[in-house]
Amino acid sequence: MGFDNLTTCRYLLSVSENIRLSAVRFGADGLVPVVTQESRSGDVLMVAYANREALERTLSTGLAHYFSRSHGRLWQKGETSGHVQRITEVRLDCDRDAVLYRVEQTGPACHTGTRTCFSTVIGGTGGRADGAAAEEDPGGHVLSRLARTVASRAAARPEGS
Amino acid sequence: MGFDNLTTCRYLLSVSENIRLSAVRFGADGLVPVVTQESRSGDVLMVAYANREALERTLSTGLAHYFSRSHGRLWQKGETSGHVQRITEVRLDCDRDAVLYRVEQTGPACHTGTRTCFSTVIGGTGGRADGAAAEEDPGGHVLSRLARTVASRAAARPEGS
Repeated sequence: MGFDNLTTCRYLLSVSENIRLSAVRFGADGLVPVVTQESRSGDVLMVAYANREALERTLSTGLAHYFSRSHGRLWQKGETSGHVQRITEVRLDCDRDAVLYRVEQTGPACHTGTRTCFSTVIGGTGGRADGAAAEEDPGGHVLSRLARTVASRAAARPEGS
Repeated sequence: MGFDNLTTCRYLLSVSENIRLSAVRFGADGLVPVVTQESRSGDVLMVAYANREALERTLSTGLAHYFSRSHGRLWQKGETSGHVQRITEVRLDCDRDAVLYRVEQTGPACHTGTRTCFSTVIGGTGGRADGAAAEEDPGGHVLSRLARTVASRAAARPEGS
């Protein structure tokens, strides 16, 4: 019975992988929004857009490609800066009109030099939804917390550190 | 000097929090794409859209609101299903044309009953970008790995478990 469950599971996974690009519903402008997430930390790095060719190149090269709405052309993330995104996984949502790139990011993701494009907080408690967060924790991820700890210790220089 | 750094840091944080909604650049249709991420796991749950009113209600109530393009109206996530999203943080990206809701999700986020809307894999190695993943790891997060471990142990029932 355990074996049957695993076989079924693997079959369903292979079917879902084969859905691929024919399933994507592009908008009237031929584009689909792409959320890019760092695999390791889980941080959302950026939101951009892709046309069919950008998705094809992303899947065939293993490097994140997008379509620039402002420049009207295909671009590979990091083609000039070197801050490439290596694809670990590409996912499609239930409505088939949004794509998730899970990536390993080289250097900062944002053209402003910050690690993610979502650096501006415009609301929320920054921690638990009930506002009872004992510790401010905007990122909520291990690397972010570590970075803050290092920064605050460097500033305060407690004894023994 | 440590104190000065912290003071500056807090000042900059309060400035960025005060930017709020006046900074958001809505599209020609009055909408901005919203990525919704579960705070605890880091999982990307869904992509939807918000108009100004949806963002205002999200910030004032602490519950995620969106604008439905198909129904042409404001909606509160979970208003009928009860699967509400409590806001922990709202962030804006560098171009000010994409929003990130970080939430605590009640029940499944997807209307199909799955935990996230991004259930369909269309490419990638599922793990490391170099394809050398020793273990298949689509989610990459602790809770996902734990769930898979529980499922596989339940199926295989190894001795001593």
